Parts: sequence; C-alpha cells; structure tokens
Amino acid sequence: MIRKPYLLFLGDAPDQLAAKVAQGIKDWRPECVTGQIRLEGCQAEMGLQDLTVQKAVEMGAKTMVIGVANRGGIISPQWKPTLLAALSSGLDLASGLHNYLGDEPDLVQAAKEHGRQLIDVRKAYGTMPIANGQKRTGKRCLAVGTDVSIGKMYTTLAIHRELQSRGKKSTFRATGQTGILIEGQGVPLDAIVADFMAGSIEQLTPDNDSDHWDIVEGQGSLFHASYSGVTLALVHGSQPDALVLCHDPTRTEMRGLPGYQLPSLDYLHEIALKLAQVVNPQCQVIGVAINSSKMSTEDATAYLQKTEDQLQIPVTDPYRFGVTALVDSLLNIP
Amino acid sequence: MIRKPYLLFLGDAPDQLAAKVAQGIKDWRPECVTGQIRLEGCQAEMGLQDLTVQKAVEMGAKTMVIGVANRGGIISPQWKPTLLAALSSGLDLASGLHNYLGDEPDLVQAAKEHGRQLIDVRKAYGTMPIANGQKRTGKRCLAVGTDVSIGKMYTTLAIHRELQSRGKKSTFRATGQTGILIEGQGVPLDAIVADFMAGSIEQLTPDNDSDHWDIVEGQGSLFHASYSGVTLALVHGSQPDALVLCHDPTRTEMRGLPGYQLPSLDYLHEIALKLAQVVNPQCQVIGVAINSSKMSTEDATAYLQKTEDQLQIPVTDPYRFGVTALVDSLLNIP
Repeated sequence: MIRKPYLLFLGDAPDQLAAKVAQGIKDWRPECVTGQIRLEGCQAEMGLQDLTVQKAVEMGAKTMVIGVANRGGIISPQWKPTLLAALSSGLDLASGLHNYLGDEPDLVQAAKEHGRQLIDVRKAYGTMPIANGQKRTGKRCLAVGTDVSIGKMYTTLAIHRELQSRGKKSTFRATGQTGILIEGQGVPLDAIVADFMAGSIEQLTPDNDSDHWDIVEGQGSLFHASYSGVTLALVHGSQPDALVLCHDPTRTEMRGLPGYQLPSLDYLHEIALKLAQVVNPQCQVIGVAINSSKMSTEDATAYLQKTEDQLQIPVTDPYRFGVTALVDSLLNIP
Repeated sequence: MIRKPYLLFLGDAPDQLAAKVAQGIKDWRPECVTGQIRLEGCQAEMGLQDLTVQKAVEMGAKTMVIGVANRGGIISPQWKPTLLAALSSGLDLASGLHNYLGDEPDLVQAAKEHGRQLIDVRKAYGTMPIANGQKRTGKRCLAVGTDVSIGKMYTTLAIHRELQSRGKKSTFRATGQTGILIEGQGVPLDAIVADFMAGSIEQLTPDNDSDHWDIVEGQGSLFHASYSGVTLALVHGSQPDALVLCHDPTRTEMRGLPGYQLPSLDYLHEIALKLAQVVNPQCQVIGVAINSSKMSTEDATAYLQKTEDQLQIPVTDPYRFGVTALVDSLLNIP
C-alpha cells in the first residue's frame, strides 16, 4: 500500500514520453497528486504546480513517486540529492523502475534513519498462496488483448471511472507497475514466482458484495509467446464474469515477436472465453476496446461499426469515444 | 548440472512411497546409481546395494541425492550426520525438498569447507531470458494433461527411452524436481519468476540437429486453475512439433480443486493444439497416454480401444503397454 497523496518526480526526463508513469497517475488520480518536481533540463510537464520537497510535505504529500524512466530503467546519480531530501523530509519513495530503490545503499540507509519506506512496485512483497479455484462472491471484469501494450490498462481504468461516476461499487485491481502506482496497491504479476501467479490474483480479487465489480488490469496476451503464461494465470486467478477484448487494428505483428501475426478478434473471443469458462462457466465477452490512435477519425468510426456488426457486441475506442457502451453491457450481467 | 553417479539417500523413509524420488531415479537411470544408504527404521528399499558414504565414494559416487520426502518436505535433524559425512567425504548433495539445503547453516559451512556443492532443484539458478519466440532447429515433443499428476513425466521418460533404444537422437528435458534429479539437469519451471517462464524453456530446448527430439516433461494442466499459467508458458516456450495428451479416466475431479471436472480428451486436444499452433503452426497431437492404474486390464484395454477409435490417433498406457505406438507416430512427423 503506497501512501497518498503523491509528489510526482519527473527528474531530468528528456521528453514527455519518458514521464508516462507520472502522466498516467496525473490523468487517472489527479486528486491524489500535490504537484510535480523537476530537475535541471527536464523536458516533461504535467501541467501541475512545480514544488520543492519541503513545499510538497507542507501540502500533505506522503510519497514521492518516480514518474520518469530513463534508458535502462536505472536510478540516476543526478536524482540522488532529491531522493535523499525526500526521505529526510518525511516522504516515502515509490518506483516502478527495473533497478530497485532497495538496492541503493544510500537510499536504504536514509530510509532507515528517517523511518521511511522504499517501495519498488516491480517487486513481490509478502507470501502468496497457491490458487484454490473456489468461487468467490462479487463480480470481476478482466481485459484481454490480441497483443501486449494494446490499451488494456487504459480500458480498465476507464471502465472503473465510468462505474464510479454512475455510483456503482467497483475497485480497480492493478496487476502491473504503472497500474500499482496509480492505484497505490496491486500485484506485480510478472514478478511473481510461477507457482503463485494465479493465487496472487485470487488474493487481489477477494470475496466482495454481490453488486461489486473488480475491474482487473490485463497483462500480456494469451497469444504472445513471451508472456502468455502470465495472462492465463490472470484469466484463471481472476475468475472473470466479464471479458473485454482489446485490439489495435493497425498493428502488423506482435510486439517484440517479428513474424508473429496478431490473432483475429474472433479467435481471441473464442479462445479467451473457453479458457475463462474453465473457472467461471457463466463468463461472457461484454465488448471490445479498440486502440485506434493511428487511424483517422473516419477510418476509426468505420472500423468500429464494421467490427460491431460482425461480432454483435459493443465496440468502442475508450480514449476517443468513451466506455459508455462497455459499461452498459457490463451492468447487464445478472 | 548434478554430477553423476549418485548415492541414493533413503533416510528414515516410513514407507516405499516416501522414497518415490529415489524410485524414479533408480527406475529411469539405474546406470547412474551406485547404491542406497538407509538409516535406522527405514522402510523403503530400492533393491540396491546398501552402502556407507565411504564405500559409495570408493565406487565413484559424486553426489548423494535426497531420495526421500518426509511430511512437510523438511530436512530432518536425524539426517544431518549422514549429510555432513557425505560432504566431508567429497560428495555433493542434491535435493528436491521444499526446504533448501542452502538454508541450513551447518550444511553450508561444511560444503564450503570441503569445496562441495549443495544443489536445491526447486531453486532457479542463474539468469533467465525473456522468450523471443524465434523458430529453432530440431524437434520437440511435449506432454500435456487433462489434470496435474497424471503421468506426464512417466510418459515422456518412456518415449525418450524408446527413442534411445531405437538409436534415435533425443534428450529428456526436465521441468520439475524429480525430472531434474533423474536427468541431472533441467528447469524447475514452477520456481521461475513469471516473466521468464517461457524464456527458461526456450533456453532448455535450444537449436539442435534436425533429426533430434527434445522430449519435454509437462507441468500442470491448461485446465488447472492453480497452475495453468505454468503450462501455457511451457507450451509456448517449448515450441512443440508434437503433443502427447495424458489422461486418467478414473479421476472424478481435478486434483486439489473440489468440484472441478476434468476436460474431455477431445477438448484438451482442441485447446492445447490451438495454443501450441500459435508458436508452431505445424504442431500435431501424436497420441494419448492413459494412466489406467486404477482399472482392471480388461477395462483398460477396452477403454484404450474405444478412445483410439474415437480420436483416430494411437492410445496406450505407457506403464502397462509401452509407448511403441506413440514413438511410431512421433517419428512419422516429417
């Protein structure tokens, strides 16, 4: 559990994209952010107040989140004075970088001295159970994709937000680094030991009110040779009542797998549903989220209509057109 | 890599079943075993020469393998004098227990002192790559089951042995603790961090001669809610040319999952093949291995015939009737 509100550390980000973790937090949890802190040469900008560590603490900030990734995901020596100042001023530090805060002796020493926490969200903390497959109360919706990095997190965050705005009970269940930083908690599924993957997801999505929805962030793809095992553990651990399919029609091959074709939406529908029904025979596919960012509005609109006619379920681009239809479909599940 | 030959440590095994790891090694690699060593009260018996540590060393033994599991999988204090004697006499120690040899300070100290190795085959050693999905040379056969603990290791060991006896090129690729102790090397897949599961299997089954078969030990089941992710990583990492389906017709529910039905062989055939074809479109199901240990010979024979008529591929019980038909079918793959 990461304490909020956050101070977003943008460091010396060379461009806006390098600060996409900060952007995600600012977009999805603006109410949990006090401001940004930027070093000399920073080219990223969140449209937030520029703060010092001291000022952020006065405004109530509890954790400084590393919202930037540099090449290699390392903790830059240029950042160290600010990270150390945050710890000595009473802030925890949280990071999704490949290199761990907890492996930096000076940070460990300062955290200990000032009674602060270093939270590496790529690291699995605590013990995990082996999945037992038992039926849990409450409802769960999971995003699955024809490929990795195709908009699953965005889609689930948007569905959660829409449910909240309609006054429905829901929780966003983060399964990856950025999602965990946004939500403040979750399971870094790709860092879990194989035997405990599904169990960690059962633990993340426990018994709940019968009208409560866990909106579970997807990971990987059942069709991606590198990460498919992670995805199937998520399908079986989350025991979904509803699946949302995610797809980018402009992608010509699987990310990181030259020569591999993406499956069709039809085929993803068939395979994902069959696998989900192993743990929940009532599971349904409630709609499709298209990432049409590389298409013109006209092409996107035509594609969505064509796909909806073909699959006979709601099809939208959550970023462009919202998720009203997906949430309508979700709430139709008895 | 565990050095052979082995001395099999049976400890104070309360019955034969408690020494099933030793039994597996003795059954499948008798040429790699110098003898057994038993403590006061041991009720297990491998039909091997009873040796002292000293005698085993004289006979050329390189590693003493813990071939027994007691309740809880712990390293018993009663075993310690013998384990320490093995180390001081020049033997390595290898274990598949849940508790690690490497967590016992007295063993660690003795191993260091005598320059010996402690090998915990449940532990992942070294760094693992992320799978790249690239097509590799040589051929691979993988066992997949309708459930866990259904005979996949036995089936693959039998296929490997039959290939060897026909003078064909093959390697048994172990993916679980007992398999690793039998073969002397392998990947403990359920102990690998999620992101690296498929990559560890690609590394285990590298490029090879075009007429060489890797016979890959299966793990878990695509239909088992606790372990399915491990299985799919294995399917995609091993890039199989051939699948063997494993099934026990007498099992009424999935192991450890009350209320869960096993899938039919037809359904496993369909789903496993579709998933395998993501990485190898030429993959085929070459036959079925039935565990008929709880059936009469008559019932078993009738069941095999009926299943063969239905699926139109070879169906056998490897233990009762051998794997000739499976290997014939395997070698038909161009």
